[in-house]
Amino acid sequence: MSSHNKIPKCRIVVDAMGGDYAPQNAVVGAVNAVNERNDFELFLVGEKKIILEVLKKNNLVFPEEKIIDADQVIEMGDNPSDAIKMKKNSSIVVGCKFVADGNAEAFVSAGNTGAVVMASTLFIGRIKGVERPTIGTFIPNQTGVTTLFDVGAFVDSKPHHLLSYGIMSSIFVKEIYGIDKPTIGLLSVGEEEEKGGKTIKEAFDLLKNSKLNFVGNVEGKDILLGKTNIVICDGFVGNILLKFGEAVPKLLKHLLKSYAEKSLFNKIKVGLFRNTLKKALVPLDYQQYGGVPLLGVKAISIIGHGSSSELAIKNMVIRAKEMVDKDLVNKIQNSIETYS
Amino acid sequence: MSSHNKIPKCRIVVDAMGGDYAPQNAVVGAVNAVNERNDFELFLVGEKKIILEVLKKNNLVFPEEKIIDADQVIEMGDNPSDAIKMKKNSSIVVGCKFVADGNAEAFVSAGNTGAVVMASTLFIGRIKGVERPTIGTFIPNQTGVTTLFDVGAFVDSKPHHLLSYGIMSSIFVKEIYGIDKPTIGLLSVGEEEEKGGKTIKEAFDLLKNSKLNFVGNVEGKDILLGKTNIVICDGFVGNILLKFGEAVPKLLKHLLKSYAEKSLFNKIKVGLFRNTLKKALVPLDYQQYGGVPLLGVKAISIIGHGSSSELAIKNMVIRAKEMVDKDLVNKIQNSIETYS
Repeated sequence: MSSHNKIPKCRIVVDAMGGDYAPQNAVVGAVNAVNERNDFELFLVGEKKIILEVLKKNNLVFPEEKIIDADQVIEMGDNPSDAIKMKKNSSIVVGCKFVADGNAEAFVSAGNTGAVVMASTLFIGRIKGVERPTIGTFIPNQTGVTTLFDVGAFVDSKPHHLLSYGIMSSIFVKEIYGIDKPTIGLLSVGEEEEKGGKTIKEAFDLLKNSKLNFVGNVEGKDILLGKTNIVICDGFVGNILLKFGEAVPKLLKHLLKSYAEKSLFNKIKVGLFRNTLKKALVPLDYQQYGGVPLLGVKAISIIGHGSSSELAIKNMVIRAKEMVDKDLVNKIQNSIETYS
Repeated sequence: MSSHNKIPKCRIVVDAMGGDYAPQNAVVGAVNAVNERNDFELFLVGEKKIILEVLKKNNLVFPEEKIIDADQVIEMGDNPSDAIKMKKNSSIVVGCKFVADGNAEAFVSAGNTGAVVMASTLFIGRIKGVERPTIGTFIPNQTGVTTLFDVGAFVDSKPHHLLSYGIMSSIFVKEIYGIDKPTIGLLSVGEEEEKGGKTIKEAFDLLKNSKLNFVGNVEGKDILLGKTNIVICDGFVGNILLKFGEAVPKLLKHLLKSYAEKSLFNKIKVGLFRNTLKKALVPLDYQQYGGVPLLGVKAISIIGHGSSSELAIKNMVIRAKEMVDKDLVNKIQNSIETYS
């Protein structure tokens, strides 16, 4: 691990075809990031002809030799394992292989989450000692953000998987927020040690006996209250929570709209208020938090929200650069070794 | 089941000591319900002396002989199984036994949820064919409410438990909303049949092959979008979602407060619109929906929110009366028999 003392080389490959608004948002967001920062090397992966069109349409200058041609696209609705096998020339597969071959330190995609997880795990490979990589999300709370792992990389986690999510996410949160020993809660149905099923009880013991800053079980409400920096759970629960949480702003919008439609007076009141509410609820907007890397693979792989804006993509790319600079992968590897 | 053709006798016993604001809210809410409706017989269970004081303080007239003395209280934080064993003269145990002995058709409590579930299951007993009773909650969605079962009666549900939650909740939703064949979704991490772990896949098959109006897997967001009338899940996930959801209004309040505190101008803007927002977000207030009975036990047992107001308690009592009138217990029993 001699790379600790110098700033590592940083080459980032961005999936130009990933996300609901690709290639537009992916290409523009990525090129904006490199133009603004100019401290890393950018590659774009996807259908070359289309990428060139997007660049031209947006009056962006980008070297053609840094476009890696990949003429297939894994759609958001594709079955991840089938897609990885069938679409060998997709931007996700080609991009991950590009990293795996040592041509870049980071892959960034707002595409099919399951496919990026699988391609990253399969081609880039897992860090030694990591059985299951994990993906997390930031959830705004009353004091800042709670980082929730796992949100859907894998379901039916075993107790030792939950422990490893704790180890890896501790390193991540330390690097990103500068919190030396981030607090960790295990998501359950009550604070008492005996709450939850067999897996939770066993994971509780593993976490309790680890060197992590484990504070015990936390409940659903504690995520939003910000009781701990990190909340650990199985990907099944985490993914359901993630999607439930993302639908909350939509429900609020709907309730306000319904109320406004009841009378002209209501409509005026809501109209006047809309802007204030929008500003007050800025912390609910996931885009500002940047992407969360898939922890446990041998390179940085950042998976963003399907509906990522240009700004969200730009922030994901900047996050990737930050994680490469901070040598996250080696730090996680060292941490896993310490615990093994 | 000859009781189908006449309105059944309705005697309701209310836990005067249950809830964060007991005995005040429980006593006042219950007495208001009977005074307003006058179509059922009310009993109050709890420490007689205290109940009499609350009645006096609130200028309420209530017959002393309908107060069932129980001098122990199961606290909100008590371990349910220990409490049931140790506090045999608690309002929850005495109340459930009062129903079990045929002295009342319904028990209503805003006390320790786990204790009410256990006491109801143990003393009132399960309906034949029901392995696990289930408790649900109403979650507001874009078109009305989604009814979510199970939210914490039991964790580690087996596939056939999830099926039985579907059978019982279908009857409940039919009775309460008059929806003949309510749509049911199985909560998972994706809509495709193969998503989720082993239990979910097996439950999917059981539900698919049942006579229920099963529409397939639903995701976390679908609860708030209102994709189905009913969403079925294990009590572990349901309880986490319930508590997460309940913390959402608190987070919104906090974000608005933080925004207001940034400047005097913001403070004025938020102050002006607080009332509009409050009115628009009325659907988020759980109290208006009344309680949800514990389905699968041989009487009506309604468990309310710990922080229930007088109004919430009143609505729970009225809900109990409605469920007795509609003969919910016999209907669930018939439905379970049909499926067995």
